[in-house]
Amino acid sequence: MQLGRVTGTLVATRKDPKMEGMKFLVLRQVDIDNEDTAGYVVAVDAVGAGVGEVVMYASGSSARQTELTNNRPCDAVVMAIVDEWDVDGETRFRK
Amino acid sequence: MQLGRVTGTLVATRKDPKMEGMKFLVLRQVDIDNEDTAGYVVAVDAVGAGVGEVVMYASGSSARQTELTNNRPCDAVVMAIVDEWDVDGETRFRK
Amino acid sequence: MQLGRVTGTLVATRKDPKMEGMKFLVLRQVDIDNEDTAGYVVAVDAVGAGVGEVVMYASGSSARQTELTNNRPCDAVVMAIVDEWDVDGETRFRK
Amino acid sequence: MQLGRVTGTLVATRKDPKMEGMKFLVLRQVDIDNEDTAGYVVAVDAVGAGVGEVVMYASGSSARQTELTNNRPCDAVVMAIVDEWDVDGETRFRK
Amino acid sequence: MQLGRVTGTLVATRKDPKMEGMKFLVLRQVDIDNEDTAGYVVAVDAVGAGVGEVVMYASGSSARQTELTNNRPCDAVVMAIVDEWDVDGETRFRK
Repeated sequence: MQLGRVTGTLVATRKDPKMEGMKFLVLRQVDIDNEDTAGYVVAVDAVGAGVGEVVMYASGSSARQTELTNNRPCDAVVMAIVDEWDVDGETRFRK
Repeated sequence: MQLGRVTGTLVATRKDPKMEGMKFLVLRQVDIDNEDTAGYVVAVDAVGAGVGEVVMYASGSSARQTELTNNRPCDAVVMAIVDEWDVDGETRFRK
Repeated sequence: MQLGRVTGTLVATRKDPKMEGMKFLVLRQVDIDNEDTAGYVVAVDAVGAGVGEVVMYASGSSARQTELTNNRPCDAVVMAIVDEWDVDGETRFRK
Repeated sequence: MQLGRVTGTLVATRKDPKMEGMKFLVLRQVDIDNEDTAGYVVAVDAVGAGVGEVVMYASGSSARQTELTNNRPCDAVVMAIVDEWDVDGETRFRK
Repeated sequence: MQLGRVTGTLVATRKDPKMEGMKFLVLRQVDIDNEDTAGYVVAVDAVGAGVGEVVMYASGSSARQTELTNNRPCDAVVMAIVDEWDVDGETRFRK
C-alpha cells in the first residue's frame, strides 16, 4: 500500500452506473517522511476519511476487495486512516 | 484512478474480435492542478466523453469491470466525466 | 492501452509449455506524437501485426483476455493495429 | 518480487474490517546492491519479519495469495525473509 | 513481458508455505539493446534458467499462470529463455 494525504474531493455526475454513490477523494501521495510528492491518485473512500487526514490506499484489483468496491471499475481505495508510523526507531507521523 | 483530458480518438480497423465496437479515446494525463503532463493513455470510453472533457479512468483489471469492457483485452477505461475537484480548500478544476 | 511500433521479433525455444506457438513481438513504445521513447515491451501478437506497424497493446491481466492468450503467463498482448489517431484536432499518425 | 528493509511499523485503528488483525510493515526499498532507494511500500507481514530484516514482497493480486491476505484489500505482502543473494558470482547480501 | 539477465540466485529459508521449493532468480533488467539498466526483479524460475542467460519474465497475475506458480504469492516468473531478438532488421541479441 502507499500513503497519501486527503487534499479534497472530486465530483463526477456522469459516471459508470456501478460507481453511483461512491465518494471520490483526491490524495496527494506522501513519502516515507510524510512529505508531499508530485504524485496523486483519486481513490474511493471506504473508511470515512476526512480532508487533511493521512491515509493508506490499495491499488489495482486489491482496490476491489472492500464490500463497497467489489466488482466495480475502481483501481484505488482508501482502506485505512493512519494513526502513526515509524522509521528506524523514530516516529515519522502521528495523527 | 487517474485524470486525463480527452485529446482525440484512435481508429483501429484490425483488432481483437472482442474489441469490436469499442470507442478509443486518446487521453493526455493531467496532474492534480489540471496541467498537462507528458503521459498519455488510450482508453475505452464507457460514459460518452467528448474531446476536451476532463475524465477519470481506471486501469488494469478494474478497467474490465464496466458492462462494456467485461472480459475484454482492455486495460484502461474512462468511467467518469469530471465536474470538479478541489485541493486544500481551493477548486482546481470546474467543468 | 499504450502504443508501440513493432521493431522486430523475439525467438525463445525453451519456454513455459503454455507459451508454445506464441509469436513474440518487440515493441518500441511511442509517445502521443508517435515519437520513439526509451521504453520497450515484448508482447504476444494476437492480430497478425508486421514489423514497422504501429500497434496498441494491453498489459497485465487484460493481456490474457484474447482467445490466444487466455490463462497463459503473458502480461502484454498486441490487440489492435492502429490506423490513425488525432490530438487536439490534428492527425498525429496515419498508417 | 522486490526487496525491502523493514524500517518500522504502521498503526491504523480505523480501517476496512477485512484488514483487522493485519500487521503493517513500512519497507524501504533496496536496490540489487542492498542500498536504500527513495521508494517505500507498506506491506502486510505474512512471515513474522522484524525491524531491520531484509525481506521480499509481492505486489498486486499476488499479494492476496497468502492464507492471511486472501480476498483482502491488500496490494503488498512480505512473503519471505531473505538470507542472502548474489550478483555476478559475488554475495551482495548475507543476513 | 520484459527482458533480464540472470545475475544470481536468492535464498530465503523463512517464507510463505506456498513458496516452498521455488527457485528465486535475481534478474538485472536489460533494455532493447541488451544493455544493463538500474532495474532488477526477483523472479521464480519456471524454465530452468542459468546464471548469465537472458530471459523473459511475466509480471503481476500473469506470473501465476505457470503450473509451478499457480495460486502462489509470486508476482514475477521467468517463462522463457531468449535465443535472439532483432530491432529494425538487426540482431540485437543472440545466445
